[in-house]
Amino acid sequence: MAGAEIERLMQMLSRLPGLGPRSGRRAALHLLKRRDGALLPLLSALQAVADKVRRCSRCGSYDTVDPCHLCCDPKRQSALVCVVEDMDDREAIERTRSFQGSYHVLGGLLSPLDGIGPSDLNIPALMRRVAEGGVQEVILALPATVDGQTTAHYISETLRSGRGSSPEAPQGEGFSGLVISALAHGVPVGGELDHLDDGTLSQALRARRPI
Amino acid sequence: MAGAEIERLMQMLSRLPGLGPRSGRRAALHLLKRRDGALLPLLSALQAVADKVRRCSRCGSYDTVDPCHLCCDPKRQSALVCVVEDMDDREAIERTRSFQGSYHVLGGLLSPLDGIGPSDLNIPALMRRVAEGGVQEVILALPATVDGQTTAHYISETLRSGRGSSPEAPQGEGFSGLVISALAHGVPVGGELDHLDDGTLSQALRARRPI
Repeated sequence: MAGAEIERLMQMLSRLPGLGPRSGRRAALHLLKRRDGALLPLLSALQAVADKVRRCSRCGSYDTVDPCHLCCDPKRQSALVCVVEDMDDREAIERTRSFQGSYHVLGGLLSPLDGIGPSDLNIPALMRRVAEGGVQEVILALPATVDGQTTAHYISETLRSGRGSSPEAPQGEGFSGLVISALAHGVPVGGELDHLDDGTLSQALRARRPI
Repeated sequence: MAGAEIERLMQMLSRLPGLGPRSGRRAALHLLKRRDGALLPLLSALQAVADKVRRCSRCGSYDTVDPCHLCCDPKRQSALVCVVEDMDDREAIERTRSFQGSYHVLGGLLSPLDGIGPSDLNIPALMRRVAEGGVQEVILALPATVDGQTTAHYISETLRSGRGSSPEAPQGEGFSGLVISALAHGVPVGGELDHLDDGTLSQALRARRPI
C-alpha cells in the first residue's frame, strides 16, 4: 500500500477485537476517504480518552474523574461491592437498573496458564477496600467459566482468611460479619455476562446467595 | 458508560465499516485496557496519517508524497492509465503483479440516486490528465455493478466526445488515437460453470476466443 503510515494504521486497526487484516484495511481506507467526517473525529476522540481517562483509584474502572462518577455518587451503597471482571460486565449490570451498590473492576481474571496472578489484577485494592471497613457484602459477579470461578474462589478464600492485601500476612480471622455472595445460578455455564439478556442477569443478581 | 469521552470513542469506533454499536464498545474497552499497547499506538498511527497523508494531485490515491510513489516511479508506464473506484481495487490489481501502468483513483462511483456526480469524483482530473497528452490507453477497471457500469459509460463517452474536464466545452473530436478498454468478463479462473451466474456465463460465451 502507499506509505508506511497508512500501513501502520491498517495494522493497528486490524488488531482491534472484531477486525482482521482485511477489515482493518477497509477501515483505514474508510478513514482516509473521510478525513473530516471520520478520521479527525476518531483522532480527537482517541486523544481525549488518552488525555483524560484514568483508572479510578478506588474501584479500578475507567473514567475522567478519580474517584469515578459511580464511586462519588452518594446514592450508591458503598457497603455493597459488586466485583466484576471488566467494564463491559459492569455496564451489563448497570443496564439492568437492579443494582444500587458500588463496583470493583478487576481488569481481568486469574489465569495461572497465562501467568496472570492476583497482583496483576485489581485484587489487592479490593482487599484494602474491605480492610478499611464499611463493606458489608462482596458480590462476586464473575463469569461462570473456569478462570471466573477460580478467581471467585481465590477472592472469597482470601477475604475469609482475612489476609487482606498482603499474602505474607499471618492468616487471621477474616473480616467478621462480611457476607460474600455470588450471582445465582441461571447464568449459563461458559456464558459471558456481557452477552446475557437483561432479564436473566437481573434475576441472577436478585437471587445471589452467600458462599 | 463512564464519561462523555469514552462514549464518544465508542460511537466513533462503531461507525467503522465492519463494526457496530456492540463491537464498537468492545473495541473502545479493549483500547482503554491497553493504553500503552493499543490506544497510544493507534493514536499515533492516526495522527501520522492525518498529518502526512494527502491525495495525489495526479492520480487521486492516498500517499505521504505528492505525486504518489506510483506516479513518481519511472518504471511504471504513464501512457497506460487504469481507472479504479478506490484504493482497495488498486491494491487488488497491484497484488496480481501483472500490471505495470499507472492508476487513476476515482474515489467512488457515479450514483445519481445518491446525488454523486462527476465533479464529486476524481473524473475532471482524469480528463485533464488525458488532455495533457501522453496517455495511449485508459483501462476502465470498474465493478460490474449498475453504478460501476454507469460510471464506465460516462467516462468513455466523455473521453470519446473530447469534452475533457469542462462539460460546457463544445463537443469535439475526442482524444484521437486514445484506446478505451474495460476488464474482460468471463469465467473466473478455477470457477465452476455450474456456480456461475447466468449473466457472467452468457458474457463469457459471447466473448469466446479461438484457441
